[in-house]
Amino acid sequence: MEKLTIVKVGGKIVEEPESLKKLLLDFSKISGYKVLVHGGGRSATTIATKLGIESKMINGRRITDVEMLKVVTMVYGGLVNKQIVAGLQAIGVNGLGLSGCDLNYMRSEKRPVTDVDYGYVGDVKEVNAGILKDLILKGVVPVLAPLTHDNAGNLLNTNADTIASEAAKALSVFFEVTLMYCFEKKGVLLNESDDESVLSELTASLFKEYITKGIIQGGMIPKLENSFEALKAGVKEVVITRADFIHTKGGTIVIL
Amino acid sequence: MEKLTIVKVGGKIVEEPESLKKLLLDFSKISGYKVLVHGGGRSATTIATKLGIESKMINGRRITDVEMLKVVTMVYGGLVNKQIVAGLQAIGVNGLGLSGCDLNYMRSEKRPVTDVDYGYVGDVKEVNAGILKDLILKGVVPVLAPLTHDNAGNLLNTNADTIASEAAKALSVFFEVTLMYCFEKKGVLLNESDDESVLSELTASLFKEYITKGIIQGGMIPKLENSFEALKAGVKEVVITRADFIHTKGGTIVIL
Repeated sequence: MEKLTIVKVGGKIVEEPESLKKLLLDFSKISGYKVLVHGGGRSATTIATKLGIESKMINGRRITDVEMLKVVTMVYGGLVNKQIVAGLQAIGVNGLGLSGCDLNYMRSEKRPVTDVDYGYVGDVKEVNAGILKDLILKGVVPVLAPLTHDNAGNLLNTNADTIASEAAKALSVFFEVTLMYCFEKKGVLLNESDDESVLSELTASLFKEYITKGIIQGGMIPKLENSFEALKAGVKEVVITRADFIHTKGGTIVIL
Repeated sequence: MEKLTIVKVGGKIVEEPESLKKLLLDFSKISGYKVLVHGGGRSATTIATKLGIESKMINGRRITDVEMLKVVTMVYGGLVNKQIVAGLQAIGVNGLGLSGCDLNYMRSEKRPVTDVDYGYVGDVKEVNAGILKDLILKGVVPVLAPLTHDNAGNLLNTNADTIASEAAKALSVFFEVTLMYCFEKKGVLLNESDDESVLSELTASLFKEYITKGIIQGGMIPKLENSFEALKAGVKEVVITRADFIHTKGGTIVIL
């Protein structure tokens, strides 16, 4: 099988012109087939605030009411996605921005209300990986926004880490997939206050131990849960690192 | 050659859920290959106003400064485009939303400053019609937002009528293209105050005459200029009508 690298990048790196430019250049140098998945939460919060819409978060996840859904549709599907695609085209990478509705490539269902009502948030139910594969084999680089749809006319806000892992799992049928989660740190840290305390390798059993001990917490937990789930579903390798480290052997390699 | 219908719809019809739903249903019933081109100016103005950004228009064209460019990128490329695509998928039409940067399908250059500085507005220079054709022949329905890019990393605001006529011209190499411009009236009117005074046919010579007499004026002039240009470039037929009339023989047929 041929290699495919899926890079997920969130945070301010994709939202500031200079850092985005550097990221796209680094990304363009990844050899072989590739997919870029982006966030955009900071811009969504900024625009929402300017529009007088309050951003509510629970467990690091955005509560998406009908007005916030419009904001994320604009910001993720429009502003951030198209700026990335235009930036990629400028350096010879044939990007194609996709939200879940485009080509019906990722279908979700509105998350059921339990103790929390997340609003218009989608849980992924189906990925049409064949469509993505055909595009990728033609040299197209899909640029995936964190939006899905329910195939009944509604867009749904979906965590970008989840988009990345769902795409990775579905594409592992066709490719040897490396999934790279890029964030602000060099990798999973043993000590939150020491940026150099990067774990070079993290197994599922160590993960459980570190959660119990409180070493791994917060937003890193769903990121790692997504990682293990992806590995179990056939993804070859998951790497957690900083965006400017994607060409090094730094970062944390997650293994089962 | 096989038939292709390109429908351009702007105005509030694409920006209000109920009218959009009806439009998409009518559009879905067009037999054969099709492309949808949309505007979104009203939403852009509304969002801009909420963000404290003033909308400036000259000759019906939007002046696009750097902040307004962000607004139209969000609204056209994100909000309006993705709502349309999601709406199409819900009725079984395999939509794919595209801005000019996507697949580098439409390249433009920033309009030179003459007596007016339109700002980040693009004049179309190149349409990669082969890419659109391949998608269309696979049953994909491109949904084109009024955004292009300069292939140097910059998005540019581009009039939706122009997007439609440029796509129509380029695709006329592969298809027998009908271009339908839908707007609020049933067609080109002989008398602005009489909605029933629809010209059933308009030739280039009559067009010139009607401009001289002041019968045709304002935003209808560039729309018709686009139409004649499209016909000269190989488009088979241009129809100007109201969106809910696309299945009738009403409206104005523009001929050379």
